[in-house]
Amino acid sequence: SAKPKTKSRSSCWLLQPRQLNNICIVFAELIATAMLMFLGCMGCIENSFFSNSNFQSALNFGFVVLICIQCFGCVCGAHLNPAVTLANYIYNMISLPMAISYFVAQMVGAFIGYGLLKAVMPESAIYSSSTSSGVCVTSLHSSLTGLQGVVIEFLITSALIAICCGVWDPRNAKNQDSVPVRFGLAIACLSLTAGQFTGASMNPARSFAPAIWNGAWENHWIYWVGPLAGALVSSLIYKYAFRREVQAQEEQESTMSTKRTSELEFA
Amino acid sequence: SAKPKTKSRSSCWLLQPRQLNNICIVFAELIATAMLMFLGCMGCIENSFFSNSNFQSALNFGFVVLICIQCFGCVCGAHLNPAVTLANYIYNMISLPMAISYFVAQMVGAFIGYGLLKAVMPESAIYSSSTSSGVCVTSLHSSLTGLQGVVIEFLITSALIAICCGVWDPRNAKNQDSVPVRFGLAIACLSLTAGQFTGASMNPARSFAPAIWNGAWENHWIYWVGPLAGALVSSLIYKYAFRREVQAQEEQESTMSTKRTSELEFA
Amino acid sequence: SAKPKTKSRSSCWLLQPRQLNNICIVFAELIATAMLMFLGCMGCIENSFFSNSNFQSALNFGFVVLICIQCFGCVCGAHLNPAVTLANYIYNMISLPMAISYFVAQMVGAFIGYGLLKAVMPESAIYSSSTSSGVCVTSLHSSLTGLQGVVIEFLITSALIAICCGVWDPRNAKNQDSVPVRFGLAIACLSLTAGQFTGASMNPARSFAPAIWNGAWENHWIYWVGPLAGALVSSLIYKYAFRREVQAQEEQESTMSTKRTSELEFA
Amino acid sequence: SAKPKTKSRSSCWLLQPRQLNNICIVFAELIATAMLMFLGCMGCIENSFFSNSNFQSALNFGFVVLICIQCFGCVCGAHLNPAVTLANYIYNMISLPMAISYFVAQMVGAFIGYGLLKAVMPESAIYSSSTSSGVCVTSLHSSLTGLQGVVIEFLITSALIAICCGVWDPRNAKNQDSVPVRFGLAIACLSLTAGQFTGASMNPARSFAPAIWNGAWENHWIYWVGPLAGALVSSLIYKYAFRREVQAQEEQESTMSTKRTSELEFA
Repeated sequence: SAKPKTKSRSSCWLLQPRQLNNICIVFAELIATAMLMFLGCMGCIENSFFSNSNFQSALNFGFVVLICIQCFGCVCGAHLNPAVTLANYIYNMISLPMAISYFVAQMVGAFIGYGLLKAVMPESAIYSSSTSSGVCVTSLHSSLTGLQGVVIEFLITSALIAICCGVWDPRNAKNQDSVPVRFGLAIACLSLTAGQFTGASMNPARSFAPAIWNGAWENHWIYWVGPLAGALVSSLIYKYAFRREVQAQEEQESTMSTKRTSELEFA
Repeated sequence: SAKPKTKSRSSCWLLQPRQLNNICIVFAELIATAMLMFLGCMGCIENSFFSNSNFQSALNFGFVVLICIQCFGCVCGAHLNPAVTLANYIYNMISLPMAISYFVAQMVGAFIGYGLLKAVMPESAIYSSSTSSGVCVTSLHSSLTGLQGVVIEFLITSALIAICCGVWDPRNAKNQDSVPVRFGLAIACLSLTAGQFTGASMNPARSFAPAIWNGAWENHWIYWVGPLAGALVSSLIYKYAFRREVQAQEEQESTMSTKRTSELEFA
Repeated sequence: SAKPKTKSRSSCWLLQPRQLNNICIVFAELIATAMLMFLGCMGCIENSFFSNSNFQSALNFGFVVLICIQCFGCVCGAHLNPAVTLANYIYNMISLPMAISYFVAQMVGAFIGYGLLKAVMPESAIYSSSTSSGVCVTSLHSSLTGLQGVVIEFLITSALIAICCGVWDPRNAKNQDSVPVRFGLAIACLSLTAGQFTGASMNPARSFAPAIWNGAWENHWIYWVGPLAGALVSSLIYKYAFRREVQAQEEQESTMSTKRTSELEFA
Repeated sequence: SAKPKTKSRSSCWLLQPRQLNNICIVFAELIATAMLMFLGCMGCIENSFFSNSNFQSALNFGFVVLICIQCFGCVCGAHLNPAVTLANYIYNMISLPMAISYFVAQMVGAFIGYGLLKAVMPESAIYSSSTSSGVCVTSLHSSLTGLQGVVIEFLITSALIAICCGVWDPRNAKNQDSVPVRFGLAIACLSLTAGQFTGASMNPARSFAPAIWNGAWENHWIYWVGPLAGALVSSLIYKYAFRREVQAQEEQESTMSTKRTSELEFA
């Protein structure tokens, strides 16, 4: 009775729902990235009217990531970040066409999200004494060289991707319940540590949108080279040195099923 | 031996326990919303005696939601919010009579909770220089127009409802353990981002109770139109574009059970 | 082959291990409560050398509860609090002799924990301008009457006990993973809301130890009457109005097992 | 069909993959400890340019531990700490050669991590008015004696090891999902309570690396004696007084399987 189902799957008519499904998935990634930019950057607003601190805005950015993963994690994985999509592609968890679609959705979504913020906020909230080039623009602190900046972005993105690889590891397949919380607090941590030095972007899309809306391109290359190189190196090292299949348990289970079958055979 | 039980279920005598059960459920929703208002608004108190900040009160409001869900989530779902009940109704998870009962319970519960706060707190804690119209009254910041305010409430409530839809998604059916923590931190985030602009109500009942106790009705329409419209749009988009049944796994399981049955048949 | 085991269980020799086991359990409760007092009160220290705030010390107290439950939750339940033990007794989850043992262990543990703090800390850390009667002594704010204070302690302890009842509810039996986190953040919330008004004790043992070490007995009755009355009322309401067995699922499972048995019978 | 697999396991050729695997595991421990030092100490930077507080840096250190466990917990357990490895050895969960390898990896990793921080940070971030002997150097507050300091380190490390023993307890075998979150918040708590008194090291490797890079050896013995003695005492007490096998359930399951087998036998 299972065969007819398998047949209907291979029929050409089912391609259309699959295409439609992929469009929904990419659309979810777009909304998730827009949400990341809108809420995350709103939480960075600081002027004479609205009190804020690096502590508060870093925690808030982490919690925004929690929200995005909670909302869309089951739909599209909620990468929110070309660096994560790159690592996902290296892990063979996404096809090249879908990875490119994700990248486009992330760029467009970030652009829309930041634009929405500019639309609903007064001018005084976007440009203030502490955010002269525009709120949420990632910039290098004057005490750091460009090389130090790109190394910091490389290292913190490596850490972010190692977190993803930990979540994707077969040995953690059953520990998915608190993933949004773990990601949220981890992003908060990375934002706390590096936020005052490089803005703790770890994400080209997150840096690109405020840059294009405000024309702030100083040291912008850092936020493409650092995160993407970090994602590449970190995911390759994790994949080949640390990733393990859960062979032992599978073997055990297969042994058990073999045993049961044999018991049935003897019966 | 299972048949007598099934019989007793269909007997008319069981309607009474079901009605009693529904009364308990609605009563739990009332207590939960009263708890939300009492604890949440107590955490917003700020005057010359009691130090506070937007950071602290926003985190606190999130943790209050955590408490309410932890206490009453298994009893009544702990909606706490007509906007969540609306989305729940759109998702066909609650009947219309129960949805209306929930709405009444939320309004009455919020009224009681805020009243209790006024009873146990000194006058100086309710009205201070920073909360002149009464603590916990949601109001629009003077730098924003009414339209900007309603759009912000629309957007943050859309995010809140997308979080709910994520929790309700069949693919997340087994990831319920940390739901109170995730909701708590998500509400903290939304309160942090929008708290200083609109009060981050996302909830007509939460805005109505302080308004009626303090007679503060300025821009009150925002807290009905924004949240309810956000709930409507967000739940409909999620339901038709993103929600998916876990068909694949079910089919697999049914295939497995079929296989086992056939094995037994052959035996 | 299972019968001999059952025999050895009913033999009188096994009483001794059970008694030893109970002594270990009560000893764990004692250490847990000592840990609560030592770490929780250390986190409340504030003087000219050590910066602190109500925000920080409230979050810290919550995280200390998280630690205690994480360490000893699987050993003794980590009640840490006579009010929780009272609710546990009302829920028929602990015998009267053990409940009394827990109460003694909590009082002795709290006394030891606070004493240890006094031993390792300089005098300037225990008594400062902001903690004149001794650090961690719970006291009523001067703007509140004794009645208001006892009502606040009654209400926040009711909330705490409702959280416990939620954890103990059969419907949440499988959602135990993040219990320490949920309790930690919930205690942080209750400490944030009421900490500046009554000290947010919710726990006679937690208030008694600093009182006896520092001879600070003003309004001390509040911290016995409020929490114990709150625990009594809250656990009784929850037990009779909200608590539900997971009948439906059990029946379903029993039906399934019946079905399987019948299948085997037919085979 | 299961026998050939068992054979190939015992063949000498499989030793090599096992050795390679152990090298990967020790390498992961090295990277994890380097990550702990780099991110944790970066989050402690405070000078005239970068705002910080004990509250922020303590929370951050906890979240860094969360990241390390999330990244490498499934690979090497992410001990990060000779005291944890000692307790792990007492629990018979690690062999002596591996424990020594872990210790070396932790020391080298901490050395590399702190060195990396010095490389990418300007001089003004490492040495400031509030961190005159170098950022992240653990030092004893002037109001405490050495004995008080070593007792505090002993007590907070005992608490940390009790948390580990709670995680390792057979009764918590299924509650692993939120372990990184629980550890993160627990470390944040211990850092909050003791951070201003002893630096809340709880970890010889974490104290050794900043000491050797900055030549700051004052009271350094405290951070070896306190944590290691605390780990020894705490793990032994927990192991012999509180640790329990989950016998009851196993027996029940074996009884069930026995029953099923007998049913099959009768069939």
